[in-house]
Amino acid sequence: MQKRFLLDESEMPTQWYNIQADMPNKPMPPIHPATKEPVGVDDLSHIFARECAKQELDTEHAWIDIPAPVLDMYKYYRATPLVRAYGLEQAIGTPAHIYFKNESVNPLGSHKLNSALPQCYYCKQEGVTNVTTETGAGQWGAALSYAAKVFGLECAVYQVKVSMQQKPYRSSIMRTFGATVEGSPSMSTRAGKDIITRDPNHPGSLGTAISEAIELATTTPNCKYTLGSVLNHVAIHQSIIGLEAEKQMAKAGEYPDVVIACFGGGSNFGGIAFPFMRHNILEGKQTQFIAAEPECCPKLTRGEFRYDFGDSAGYTPLLPMFTLGHEFKPANIHAGGLRYHGAGVIVSQLLKDGMMSGVDIPQLETFEAATLFARTEGIIPAPESAHAIAATIREAKRCAETGEQKVILFNLSGHGLIDMQAYDQYINGDLVNYAYNG
Amino acid sequence: MQKRFLLDESEMPTQWYNIQADMPNKPMPPIHPATKEPVGVDDLSHIFARECAKQELDTEHAWIDIPAPVLDMYKYYRATPLVRAYGLEQAIGTPAHIYFKNESVNPLGSHKLNSALPQCYYCKQEGVTNVTTETGAGQWGAALSYAAKVFGLECAVYQVKVSMQQKPYRSSIMRTFGATVEGSPSMSTRAGKDIITRDPNHPGSLGTAISEAIELATTTPNCKYTLGSVLNHVAIHQSIIGLEAEKQMAKAGEYPDVVIACFGGGSNFGGIAFPFMRHNILEGKQTQFIAAEPECCPKLTRGEFRYDFGDSAGYTPLLPMFTLGHEFKPANIHAGGLRYHGAGVIVSQLLKDGMMSGVDIPQLETFEAATLFARTEGIIPAPESAHAIAATIREAKRCAETGEQKVILFNLSGHGLIDMQAYDQYINGDLVNYAYNG
Repeated sequence: MQKRFLLDESEMPTQWYNIQADMPNKPMPPIHPATKEPVGVDDLSHIFARECAKQELDTEHAWIDIPAPVLDMYKYYRATPLVRAYGLEQAIGTPAHIYFKNESVNPLGSHKLNSALPQCYYCKQEGVTNVTTETGAGQWGAALSYAAKVFGLECAVYQVKVSMQQKPYRSSIMRTFGATVEGSPSMSTRAGKDIITRDPNHPGSLGTAISEAIELATTTPNCKYTLGSVLNHVAIHQSIIGLEAEKQMAKAGEYPDVVIACFGGGSNFGGIAFPFMRHNILEGKQTQFIAAEPECCPKLTRGEFRYDFGDSAGYTPLLPMFTLGHEFKPANIHAGGLRYHGAGVIVSQLLKDGMMSGVDIPQLETFEAATLFARTEGIIPAPESAHAIAATIREAKRCAETGEQKVILFNLSGHGLIDMQAYDQYINGDLVNYAYNG
Repeated sequence: MQKRFLLDESEMPTQWYNIQADMPNKPMPPIHPATKEPVGVDDLSHIFARECAKQELDTEHAWIDIPAPVLDMYKYYRATPLVRAYGLEQAIGTPAHIYFKNESVNPLGSHKLNSALPQCYYCKQEGVTNVTTETGAGQWGAALSYAAKVFGLECAVYQVKVSMQQKPYRSSIMRTFGATVEGSPSMSTRAGKDIITRDPNHPGSLGTAISEAIELATTTPNCKYTLGSVLNHVAIHQSIIGLEAEKQMAKAGEYPDVVIACFGGGSNFGGIAFPFMRHNILEGKQTQFIAAEPECCPKLTRGEFRYDFGDSAGYTPLLPMFTLGHEFKPANIHAGGLRYHGAGVIVSQLLKDGMMSGVDIPQLETFEAATLFARTEGIIPAPESAHAIAATIREAKRCAETGEQKVILFNLSGHGLIDMQAYDQYINGDLVNYAYNG
């Protein structure tokens, strides 16, 4: 029984996939909050690298070449293994075949490096010297810190305050790579000061940290903002996950009936899902796509589809998204990467068009799933990824009831070795569920 | 430029290598402290699984079949990649070719699982229900906790007290896998009580924790002791590292002039070194083997070759080893896995015979090396592995001076994600060197 499916360097994808080109209904454009006009590449280039801005609005090209220096860096850690989770299958007693794409073996511990590398590369190419960003649990911040170092850029990270306290080692990791790290909301930006003035105990959220990072980028010479999720160009870079998985599933002689990933802004979900979804669009395949979000931050299952800001302070263009409102303050769950009020533009359109579905999961169920996965597969998953595992277990149990031998593929977006405080709380019985408080 | 060299499942080694069969001078036997007679398999079987005891004393068979269920588990994470460290080479400006075997991508974060799996498998086969062990930094304890779960055994771990405080997350990991964890010296054994009585603030060492675990094993029905290093059967299991590396180096079209690993008891050193050393023994190759130990715990460079106990309390047989004395109390460096007073029996004989050498390295140099490696290769190494990196950098710098294009292979035994407190101290300038206080 083969457990792992690998790819040689020669088999690695050399292009990313851009689902925007194939979508039956294109995403609605981001619009400028003052003029209400669609924003263009020039507008976005004030904030992002120009190449990222171009990719963001590109609804023409389904395939985008991975720049050689980025591909070169990918080859240090990619292709990541596709693993058949025999241990988990046995423990559940399911006839389903469960596969996971193991992004937890990436250096820095998650899929985030897949987009950090190209974003830093494009910045470097365009003469940028400094990058900044937000981070929740810190997976994206850690990845960006390393990618910035690789391409010779300075890096400043705003980390959500509550996540910084829950996972102190992640800021240590970023500092080890030479980055500056600040807890958000902070007193170092106008946006941060405003939030602290209104609510001195604000725990921070991805929304507050994005505001601060954008403010830093737009007020610092030669500095660009980078984002680890939500945006279309991030989903393009992350498509490397699904493109590899497609080749690896073929080696396993199977094709997924269900593809599952956790959902914060959509980067790892889009990464694994979109390359398979193109076969639904173009060839009428019937694969199901499930995005697993936290019960307390349920934009997919309980959010509203409308134009909203991507950040708390309202610095970003208005984006057409499923949202809980840009001022929504999520509960302090340990899955810091999923504490975001809105869904990315592409995913929002796909959800609206019924091409995927969302499921929201209580925190305790995610840790129960994570512990079972750890004990059967040997990998302690990130609290974010634990949402995908919990959704997978639900699906596999359904198969156990119906006898269906479905092929389930989920993305293990990262490991949880920096999140052991959360596991301690779970083992000690101190972890609780948080209902949606919106 | 190919960066990673992988193996398919079909290319994986199916046997371990036992260097004892090929050594020109066989290791001297362990002897019973009371009778002064060599101990045999029956004696050792009181403590260890019988199959491990047999392997321990086997000087006949160079090749030992890996049991199918162990090989099956190996296939979840092996072969680990061999990586060419172009980034590090560039940063040093060396003509040397640097390769590392990346055991940090193992589940549980280090090479320790390679021996935890067979030890638990043999115990299970022999009807054992409980296993116990010692652990320093916790890499071995974490690996054993998971392996015990895989084969349905209960697991109790004595973790060195100072390491438990320095790396609290490692005990969380063990508990997540369902193990019981106790800080050593503890009040739960006679050995622990004796040590605490003499020295209430004793920080613990691998020697104290071994005593406690052996006491538990020998006073608990159906319980066996397991060890993560030092012993011959552990080096046999770890030979999987070097056997894979040999095939992978061949794919890279090179053969190592120098093989380097960090050194605590010898498990990862033996693992990567012995399969290459056999070509020195059998075919006259001239590869150099360097074991990197901490400046403050220098048994290879400053220890004495004599019979000594493997643990603090004197429960083990007497072993012929380079030792600093079994009551030696190592300084509180962060490389907890290297805080051990003696070298394994095989390594001690090889060192005596001039077939390898030791080098001792100050703590600050190891963290400087670790940080450079992290920033160039993206992986934060374990403080133990940082010793191998520091020794590699010394060697690569020598090559930069002489112009020699040596091929250097080192073993990255594990990642340091649970050791970020140490990196924090290093970044903040709070880390210090400890001279040898023996």
